[in-house]
Amino acid sequence: MANQGDGAVRFGVNYTPSADWFHHWLDFDLEAVHRDFASISSLGADHVRVFPVWSIFQPNRTLINSRALQDLSAMVDAAAEHGLDVSVDALQGHLSSFDFLPSWLTSWHRANLFTDPIVRSGQVSYLRELAASLAEKKNVLGLSLGNEFSQFASVEHPDVQPVSVQQAECWLGEMLAALEAGFPGGQHCHAEYDSAFFDPQHPFTPAGTARGGSMSTVHSWVFNQTAQRYGGMSEESLRLAEYLTELARAWATDPARPIWLQEIGAPAPHVAPEDAGEFTRKALRNALDCEGLWGVTWWCSHDVDRALADFPELEYDLGLFRTDQTLKAQGEAFQEIAGSRQDRPEQRSTSLVLDVGDETSAPGRAQCAPGGAFFESWMTLAKAGARPGIVLASQREASGYLQARGIEQLVELGETQALSR
Amino acid sequence: MANQGDGAVRFGVNYTPSADWFHHWLDFDLEAVHRDFASISSLGADHVRVFPVWSIFQPNRTLINSRALQDLSAMVDAAAEHGLDVSVDALQGHLSSFDFLPSWLTSWHRANLFTDPIVRSGQVSYLRELAASLAEKKNVLGLSLGNEFSQFASVEHPDVQPVSVQQAECWLGEMLAALEAGFPGGQHCHAEYDSAFFDPQHPFTPAGTARGGSMSTVHSWVFNQTAQRYGGMSEESLRLAEYLTELARAWATDPARPIWLQEIGAPAPHVAPEDAGEFTRKALRNALDCEGLWGVTWWCSHDVDRALADFPELEYDLGLFRTDQTLKAQGEAFQEIAGSRQDRPEQRSTSLVLDVGDETSAPGRAQCAPGGAFFESWMTLAKAGARPGIVLASQREASGYLQARGIEQLVELGETQALSR
Repeated sequence: MANQGDGAVRFGVNYTPSADWFHHWLDFDLEAVHRDFASISSLGADHVRVFPVWSIFQPNRTLINSRALQDLSAMVDAAAEHGLDVSVDALQGHLSSFDFLPSWLTSWHRANLFTDPIVRSGQVSYLRELAASLAEKKNVLGLSLGNEFSQFASVEHPDVQPVSVQQAECWLGEMLAALEAGFPGGQHCHAEYDSAFFDPQHPFTPAGTARGGSMSTVHSWVFNQTAQRYGGMSEESLRLAEYLTELARAWATDPARPIWLQEIGAPAPHVAPEDAGEFTRKALRNALDCEGLWGVTWWCSHDVDRALADFPELEYDLGLFRTDQTLKAQGEAFQEIAGSRQDRPEQRSTSLVLDVGDETSAPGRAQCAPGGAFFESWMTLAKAGARPGIVLASQREASGYLQARGIEQLVELGETQALSR
Repeated sequence: MANQGDGAVRFGVNYTPSADWFHHWLDFDLEAVHRDFASISSLGADHVRVFPVWSIFQPNRTLINSRALQDLSAMVDAAAEHGLDVSVDALQGHLSSFDFLPSWLTSWHRANLFTDPIVRSGQVSYLRELAASLAEKKNVLGLSLGNEFSQFASVEHPDVQPVSVQQAECWLGEMLAALEAGFPGGQHCHAEYDSAFFDPQHPFTPAGTARGGSMSTVHSWVFNQTAQRYGGMSEESLRLAEYLTELARAWATDPARPIWLQEIGAPAPHVAPEDAGEFTRKALRNALDCEGLWGVTWWCSHDVDRALADFPELEYDLGLFRTDQTLKAQGEAFQEIAGSRQDRPEQRSTSLVLDVGDETSAPGRAQCAPGGAFFESWMTLAKAGARPGIVLASQREASGYLQARGIEQLVELGETQALSR
């Protein structure tokens, strides 16, 4: 099979407002949104991913801010005027190092965000009501649970929320059901960062990432030690999104499950500003060589105004546009790639076998991280031109599955020569 | 001297919006504010204390939300139309168990709220700009730093910010100077809860409370173990505000420094709902028997809508009005007292001597708390009709000071008979 996809790969951007960043919800300016969307549309983008701020949208567990819903509705309609579809993230949660938990979940009211039944009931109400407010909008694709919400379950988080693999899965199921209840048939996802694929301590697992919701999502950030270890313009960095996409595919039980490269960006200084255009071009071309890609959504539309304080340095300059709407080198590269959409790629006939032990909890997943044996072996194959896919150890003998994926050759980790089946 | 005050005691209320509580800043409805102010004005109140929410007004360290400032300005003008002066609390911070720290101060961005120089610079910017936005308003009295902001320094706070007595005093001085810089000559205060008077571990001290800003503030809440220990309608509960007012006076270096009973309420079930009217009447009459009282500000104007979740039970029903603007028994009592203002009371000629050790850090202040020896001795004198004041041990021999306060008799703690000087 040459092409399993239906329709062209979608190109879009994560929408970061050029004025006031996401704080614009507090002083919403529809004209400013129109200006930003006009710029985004000029790139040939067909969609935006947008970010309500949780503490503004649900300030009390039983209060959904109706003005904020109206502003979101106006934003969605503005996008439609510019020919843009919209995907909405719900539980923000977390954005560019800033957390936005409502006061009913902090300090005196702190409670586990994943396991407390009262908290969950509040999240469900919000997700359902937010989704329902968007369900009739023709240009809304669906919702994501929230941007990298599972970082709250990371042991690195200052207020880590202890949660087991089982509890994380349960939470995901309940939240996704709430989106579906509010907006039946929408393209609803959860939005994981790479700890799910790489960190054996992380309770959100690769299996969960690749099985809940209507698509798997990939967030590809070379500051995850890839750039530090190999260089920002190394093949490893340029192929990180491709690699994560193949990893997500391996973890899906359905070989035809679509994958959304939901975030990819060119963070300085990991990628030098003068390399940003080339990085964008090459990283996108590599990612587009993966079959079954629903779309690519660049992070992000606009730089963060340097008048705003306290962002990590790399977050300021991730935009395709500057705050004055002028296009940057990475914006030109994005526009070029988005305007030259190619045929869907062939399936990958050679796959590297991934054995992480128990495939529910994935205790051996650290080998997939930058510097890990699996990561490096896959990159070696990729650099040799093998276009490697990935197959879980449990699927080694699953001939129907392998056939559906078009896999002709499996390579075991550590083998110096490819083994033919 | 019969009366050191100039002008009548001021009566006001802490303004809790009848719809959406303080979340109304997110969906500001000026007409709703007018309705609330009309009710408040009908009580004979002459002022309101109002509460910007910090995370809404300063979402980023270098971004003051201009729409929020406009809404606050409109609120102040609405108050003027109803004959109400306004005092504005800045760093909320903390309201009715909910904390509102902006995202630039939480989780990944957590930093000490009192000692971090970058945080302090952000607070100073906000205080100065907020104060400046109000300086030209004829009906704005001044600002308080924030509602019970020092609770963040309490060892009981889940995210306690370690701070020394010296650092706390330094912070207070810097913040009060910022208010004065933005709004020269305003009646600026800081707003402490009773831990400053009672808790030897608390870095905010009675001395600091009674010496910074233009007035000392008192927050009188019988749920501080007074009601639990003695009963909600006990003399101890009915005289708590009076006691705290005299305590604040004792700690002031200036005998003529005004005292603002900034918060007092009738919290159920500590005060039974059927007793709330009588509690209000008696507690206010006792407090009004203190000289030098600038004013009394009841907590609060309106009940919290029970459609809003997760408030501590006692916070829902503290209003003088229900959310439908109907007057409650405590509202009738407040109206009665506010409408029958009397002459300023005589000075108190008998005073109990308070010895807490070093008067900067006040290591012995626990004796002042409900159940403490000093608290109980003062109450015994008060119940015997002695109208006791309080004098610090260091002032025992300060004849000029004692004369200015009109003190003729000092009673040492533990003495069974009053000692004449």
